[in-house]
Amino acid sequence: MRIDIITVVPDILTSPFDVSILKRAIEKGLVEIHLHNLRDYVTDNYKQIDDYQFGGGAGMVMMIEPIDKCITGLKAEREYDEIIYMTPDGATLNQKTVNTLSLKENIIILCGHYKGVDQRVRDHFITREISIGDYVLSGGELAAAVLCDAVIRLIPGVLGNETSALTDSFQDDLLAPPVYTRPADYKGWKVPEILTSGNFPKIETWREEQSYLRTRQLRPDLLKDE
Amino acid sequence: MRIDIITVVPDILTSPFDVSILKRAIEKGLVEIHLHNLRDYVTDNYKQIDDYQFGGGAGMVMMIEPIDKCITGLKAEREYDEIIYMTPDGATLNQKTVNTLSLKENIIILCGHYKGVDQRVRDHFITREISIGDYVLSGGELAAAVLCDAVIRLIPGVLGNETSALTDSFQDDLLAPPVYTRPADYKGWKVPEILTSGNFPKIETWREEQSYLRTRQLRPDLLKDE
Repeated sequence: MRIDIITVVPDILTSPFDVSILKRAIEKGLVEIHLHNLRDYVTDNYKQIDDYQFGGGAGMVMMIEPIDKCITGLKAEREYDEIIYMTPDGATLNQKTVNTLSLKENIIILCGHYKGVDQRVRDHFITREISIGDYVLSGGELAAAVLCDAVIRLIPGVLGNETSALTDSFQDDLLAPPVYTRPADYKGWKVPEILTSGNFPKIETWREEQSYLRTRQLRPDLLKDE
Repeated sequence: MRIDIITVVPDILTSPFDVSILKRAIEKGLVEIHLHNLRDYVTDNYKQIDDYQFGGGAGMVMMIEPIDKCITGLKAEREYDEIIYMTPDGATLNQKTVNTLSLKENIIILCGHYKGVDQRVRDHFITREISIGDYVLSGGELAAAVLCDAVIRLIPGVLGNETSALTDSFQDDLLAPPVYTRPADYKGWKVPEILTSGNFPKIETWREEQSYLRTRQLRPDLLKDE
């Protein structure tokens, strides 16, 4: 998979891709990340990538021309499955969308910044608008990092143990059951006895029950299709 | 505001806090970010911070002792308003929670990693569990960065123009209206005439209508309390 990220602040994104699981995925050749600094696509001397809003109001707007140049240049080199714009008013990201995107080959992610991009970018270039949640960030860069992390970890070979991802929360619309590790007794706080019983069928049943109880208590909306 | 972030991979978090708005907020003394590497709180020679799950199953679990030591040490130095655990099965983050947290003084954020933390950590130390959305990440670090970014930009003095944050999506349960900047005509794609009319009361009305229409079309759930 190849991911091209278009941003005005590429430096935000250096450390997330240089550590841990994402770094190993890149080193193994399972994913390529290319950061594009929008300022490299500006023709005037001021490297201007934003301007005041038409109609007045606080907050600058990212101009269409540098974005057009960057996206058009990339599209001339290869086919892209999706050109995604990270924006709080996009479709809310969920695990289903993450699963779908993990099967794609080439993706462009455009990070909004300031007050967002000129609407004409959204109308003419973007194939999918994604929000990572109902809150506002100072830019789309961290949202892009979150999307990449969620997607890349599902690519076969990225996680050491692939069954680990399949038992995560949301893969079956249930929250994960509680987990415990040693010591069995910490300052008098004990692990549930069932987990040290060695009775694996019973443990499995207990976990399923806990998943269901937790979901009903914390996130009943996930059970709505029952 | 002071934020203490407890993590097993502090390196993921270097660049997000070293660039742009978050960097300036730190430089202005409006926020302090302290990263704590859990491995510094381990007593054995192997620097072990995780172990196998009781009851079997894929994925390692973060042990309670190093987390206890780190949190207890911090709490001995100052009062904390919240000890937050970033986890996909926490309460879903929204702008209201972000607003609330932006008024706090001292916060600890514990980043989950691997299969999560020993449940006893959640039962005995954590005051609030937060999920940034219904998807699974390889760790809580990017989620913590997202939470910090959303919260810090609301601290007075952080954004250059404070009215900018107030007109963001979600602050009034409406999505933001479309924005445009120069040129007014790009390859034949034109800005809506109203925005270049100079009639500011009409522009305001148009923007309110667009916000409402966009919300009704894309996120009708936000209008449910009408």
